[in-house]
Amino acid sequence: MSVKLEIAQEILLNLVTVMPRERVPLQECWRRILGETVTSDMDFPPFDRSPLDGYALIADEVAAATPENPVILRQIDYIPAGENPHTAVRAGTACRIMTGAPLPPAATGVIRLEDTVLQGNSVAILAGKGADKNICFRGEEIFAGEEVVAQGTVINAGVMGMLAVLGKSRPYVFCKPRVALIATGSEIVPVDFPLVPGKIRNSNSYMLSAQVADAGGQTVLLGNASDNVDEIAHLLETASDCDVFVTTGGASVGDYDLIGEVYKKLGITLLFDRVSIKPGMPVLAGTRDGKLYLGLSGNPAAAAISFEQLVRPVLMKMAGRKVWWRPRIKAILASPFKKATGAKRFVWARCWQTANDILVEPSRGQGNGMLKSAMGANSIIVIPENSPPLPVGTEVEVVLLADA
Amino acid sequence: MSVKLEIAQEILLNLVTVMPRERVPLQECWRRILGETVTSDMDFPPFDRSPLDGYALIADEVAAATPENPVILRQIDYIPAGENPHTAVRAGTACRIMTGAPLPPAATGVIRLEDTVLQGNSVAILAGKGADKNICFRGEEIFAGEEVVAQGTVINAGVMGMLAVLGKSRPYVFCKPRVALIATGSEIVPVDFPLVPGKIRNSNSYMLSAQVADAGGQTVLLGNASDNVDEIAHLLETASDCDVFVTTGGASVGDYDLIGEVYKKLGITLLFDRVSIKPGMPVLAGTRDGKLYLGLSGNPAAAAISFEQLVRPVLMKMAGRKVWWRPRIKAILASPFKKATGAKRFVWARCWQTANDILVEPSRGQGNGMLKSAMGANSIIVIPENSPPLPVGTEVEVVLLADA
Repeated sequence: MSVKLEIAQEILLNLVTVMPRERVPLQECWRRILGETVTSDMDFPPFDRSPLDGYALIADEVAAATPENPVILRQIDYIPAGENPHTAVRAGTACRIMTGAPLPPAATGVIRLEDTVLQGNSVAILAGKGADKNICFRGEEIFAGEEVVAQGTVINAGVMGMLAVLGKSRPYVFCKPRVALIATGSEIVPVDFPLVPGKIRNSNSYMLSAQVADAGGQTVLLGNASDNVDEIAHLLETASDCDVFVTTGGASVGDYDLIGEVYKKLGITLLFDRVSIKPGMPVLAGTRDGKLYLGLSGNPAAAAISFEQLVRPVLMKMAGRKVWWRPRIKAILASPFKKATGAKRFVWARCWQTANDILVEPSRGQGNGMLKSAMGANSIIVIPENSPPLPVGTEVEVVLLADA
Repeated sequence: MSVKLEIAQEILLNLVTVMPRERVPLQECWRRILGETVTSDMDFPPFDRSPLDGYALIADEVAAATPENPVILRQIDYIPAGENPHTAVRAGTACRIMTGAPLPPAATGVIRLEDTVLQGNSVAILAGKGADKNICFRGEEIFAGEEVVAQGTVINAGVMGMLAVLGKSRPYVFCKPRVALIATGSEIVPVDFPLVPGKIRNSNSYMLSAQVADAGGQTVLLGNASDNVDEIAHLLETASDCDVFVTTGGASVGDYDLIGEVYKKLGITLLFDRVSIKPGMPVLAGTRDGKLYLGLSGNPAAAAISFEQLVRPVLMKMAGRKVWWRPRIKAILASPFKKATGAKRFVWARCWQTANDILVEPSRGQGNGMLKSAMGANSIIVIPENSPPLPVGTEVEVVLLADA
């Protein structure tokens, strides 16, 4: 069953559900996905406070003050940050106040220290305008009952800070989907093995482990297996705690293309075995007991594209994200793409902005086996099906990669 | 000493050097910075190989084959992936070959299985064109002696795969700079403490820890300290293994602005104590024994911007990166920025692409204390010094943030 990309994506996305949640110390939450909607149980700031060091006072009293005509007030209190005022401000008085300290009752403004002079107990206000602007009002940033951060939010630096403000020292986050990776192929040896003739090293598992991490998953590296149904099947069964099982190799036509047979042996229901994209056409997808099995091409560049298009959105959904797709922009081809395209094609590329345009250029080395093209890419050009060769200047759709 | 932003950046960048290196298992290398230039000691692929399942043969012999006029060859060998050929191809013969297997001597092409029919020992080739294209030649991707990945490269998925290809199971990466974080202020309590009147929670340390991680550093959370020189000084000295020391709070004018005094007490040489940007003007920088001390504002939004502009590039350099700055693009204001600007200003924003333009809009809530504006931002608008209010349609410079 060969299916169109969009159909394949829909089949897989419909099959998976969002992971359960766990509580994690806040300092470990960066890049995790928030598993709860966080509502504030109080106003923030929790009290009217001073945003600077200076004097809290009645704003109207000093509005006209200038260096030539200062207004003289009597200092009656001293409020360091973290302490509460002892008394209210009255006409003719001012309270010395520190950044972050609560405003004393009746104060309607703050004058910064640099615009004052203290002599004994008397404060001369030298510039009195805008004192009422120097207050951070209670509830100004967050009001009690407000939904401040939504479930599914990616925890970036700002969100980390906000969760701390709200006292979420161990917020709920979604568990990371666990992804088992196996590289199949009798020609493959582990990365730290000596390379004898006829063999190559397992690179797919490492490349894909980075792609899994970037999609919010957690990799379980199961190593490599030879072209043997029983061996691959056994290895898959050792990882029963995983949620998604990805193999590379053995996915296309031929007697050593074994993943279909592995699925049969394990009672995995085949969903499709080809997707009309290039590279990465041979892709098996299967399911058993609500878990997902994907057999990608053994060619790194093909496996990487299949993963991007089919596995990444699934992991993003499972990981609790609200947006499963990378951002796309329009860009102008700075060098031609000379091949005609049958099936929808994905081309590793670099894009950059000039004075007038965003330009994009395919990476060198787009062959199936070519990791180099993926290595330096910051984007992927999407070429629609049945396109002619594309000359310089063609507007194309470009998927932006974040990690380059 | 108030300095311009560019001068402050230069002072700090000149002071720090790249971290030493460590060897790390490849599976833990995602997002790390490669600490060595990796040269290949062999060709890759290490042998001419077949990119598909089919028959290796002499390409010229079958070039004219069609379903109506097939060319019949004798199968003489069978080469699974991972094994070596037993014999050369001769005129009138073909070797069955698997994806990834080495080509037999004298073979000049491969015909895919789908274009053949096997009967007994005879193979009928039904489509013979382009057989010579179906070979991955030895050294096609990498040649022996080639510098394949440069020191300072960010290890993305493609680089992970390439390092595996080259057998780098424990590559050198640069050590992460260790960044000690302290939130100062007597009004601050730890995030899991009950919030009594006059107090707020330590949010800066968590926000900054995410910013540190994003810049390639490793956070050492030292908690919070009250407005007390001895307490802050003692806390700083407990983290002598750290490379950079960042405090928040106590950085501006006033008697409770203590970081300058802490530096004096500890014999830290002050480099500057103000930078002409908004927000984030109060920034102390000091150095002692080759280590860097930075005192940022206690206001989260100001601290975040100071960190972005001053600490991030320093950490990026220390972490071994070749590029220390975020990408910048030009965009068009979709809503006005109504304030006139004295010192260079940074405004949290969201940008997006439309049919013709990239538009950008300031986040709501740009006050100093406002974490909300940072939370949802995907970019920062840079407003040059001495700018008038900016109407809709103004072209502005925008810094792109990756983690939103």
